[in-house]
Amino acid sequence: MSAPAPLVTATELNAKLRELFGADMHGLTSDMISEMEYGMVLTTMEVSPKQLRPGKIISGPTVFAACDAALFYACLSVYGLDMMMLTSDMQIRFLRPAKGTRLHARGRILSVGSKLITGQVVAFTDDETKPVAVAQGSCVPPKKNTDS
Amino acid sequence: MSAPAPLVTATELNAKLRELFGADMHGLTSDMISEMEYGMVLTTMEVSPKQLRPGKIISGPTVFAACDAALFYACLSVYGLDMMMLTSDMQIRFLRPAKGTRLHARGRILSVGSKLITGQVVAFTDDETKPVAVAQGSCVPPKKNTDS
Amino acid sequence: MSAPAPLVTATELNAKLRELFGADMHGLTSDMISEMEYGMVLTTMEVSPKQLRPGKIISGPTVFAACDAALFYACLSVYGLDMMMLTSDMQIRFLRPAKGTRLHARGRILSVGSKLITGQVVAFTDDETKPVAVAQGSCVPPKKNTDS
Amino acid sequence: MSAPAPLVTATELNAKLRELFGADMHGLTSDMISEMEYGMVLTTMEVSPKQLRPGKIISGPTVFAACDAALFYACLSVYGLDMMMLTSDMQIRFLRPAKGTRLHARGRILSVGSKLITGQVVAFTDDETKPVAVAQGSCVPPKKNTDS
Repeated sequence: MSAPAPLVTATELNAKLRELFGADMHGLTSDMISEMEYGMVLTTMEVSPKQLRPGKIISGPTVFAACDAALFYACLSVYGLDMMMLTSDMQIRFLRPAKGTRLHARGRILSVGSKLITGQVVAFTDDETKPVAVAQGSCVPPKKNTDS
Repeated sequence: MSAPAPLVTATELNAKLRELFGADMHGLTSDMISEMEYGMVLTTMEVSPKQLRPGKIISGPTVFAACDAALFYACLSVYGLDMMMLTSDMQIRFLRPAKGTRLHARGRILSVGSKLITGQVVAFTDDETKPVAVAQGSCVPPKKNTDS
Repeated sequence: MSAPAPLVTATELNAKLRELFGADMHGLTSDMISEMEYGMVLTTMEVSPKQLRPGKIISGPTVFAACDAALFYACLSVYGLDMMMLTSDMQIRFLRPAKGTRLHARGRILSVGSKLITGQVVAFTDDETKPVAVAQGSCVPPKKNTDS
Repeated sequence: MSAPAPLVTATELNAKLRELFGADMHGLTSDMISEMEYGMVLTTMEVSPKQLRPGKIISGPTVFAACDAALFYACLSVYGLDMMMLTSDMQIRFLRPAKGTRLHARGRILSVGSKLITGQVVAFTDDETKPVAVAQGSCVPPKKNTDS
């Protein structure tokens, strides 16, 4: 990936998410996007006690929600702000128990087509080199394009 | 799959889930398991307004949570009640907008090994023949077995 | 799936495959499609000794090739004969050692969109109720459509 | 991943593959492993004309075979040389048409458990930064371990 500017900024997207969901979106904090480039986004989620499983492990669906959001936002960074973008599929692999109260997900776009945008996500708590999960998936852009 | 009795019943598992999570587990109702056989489970989730996206579509992570639970419970049906069972990976494919207030997930086990139990899930609202999502994944059983 | 006629027949597709690949396509026999309906196809592959692993197990990539072909042909059954259809992704899960000399794959379409056609495949040797693998994936149809 | 020595070297594994498969393993050349570290392997495949599709694109099952082999060998690098290692599942995403006559696959291990070893693969022809496919999957180690 070369590096044009992202087609939506972290500030714009955080504002849009607050407008749509208020302070609570699956327990995600309202200012959840901390880095955004063309084809890359980093999100941060404050984990609530309700999202923990026995042993204080962050639940699998919570980790999935973070990965799903990171892929979605990374797709917007190469397409522009359009909430009609749809996740078509995602595969998540859980690698380690997710211990901690703050969950990060870094999404990266691998290919951009008119019908499908594909990317990967790494989810981690304290140490990005020891991810708690990895995921890969695709989003289908809305129908605005005329050349597909 | 032939049909021995499930190694945990719906009544036992619903009681265990209430004990662990009270009435609220990702918004799942406490009596969420309506059918349970050896290798098959059917779950029902009352969807809350917070789990809806614009257009009154049930959010993707909510559908994932239902599929993840259905696979997990189906694994318990062939292994016995042990909450240390872990999902290792799951792939979900979103097929149609998930409209409705009640979300069902039917999990079926495809193979049972000492290291890995594998299954598929169909998620639907009104019509099981028009699923909103399908998923497939594996769980790793706890270490109690001595022959693995 | 209701049941209109398939948009390409087994006879037409087998003829096309012979024209393109002759008698050998990854070791697939030339008349490999034995059943074809709208949204469903059954393929049969004669496994060659080169496709076996130690223990006379059919190799994983051979099983993948059968699943990939079955998904592709099932997509053609709902779209029409167009070899520019592309597989975008596939997840395969190996369930049992694939013993035998004849490998079948049954593909079924789950949803048809203008940008993505999604389906599942069951691969088996002797007994369809004891599959050696299951797979799910999507194909991207060619760009002929004007409304996407 | 820190960096102990790989539990099998490229030389040892290439010798083993030649012994088992001769010069031909799905068209893979006999000296296919060019780099091997603990948890990382790079493979190279000379693509034969039979593995090309119309438009001189390397076929999807050929790319899958390369990814499957790279994951398998990467698992051996952290486990030791044991051909009873089994791939349990793999998801492959095709990103770009695979043009070229030489196909590389770089496999990296993400987590090592006694029941499951998990990794990702990047497949490319000329340019590793523009992969033709990515894959992620798991292998189940043989039963020799006593602590699982």
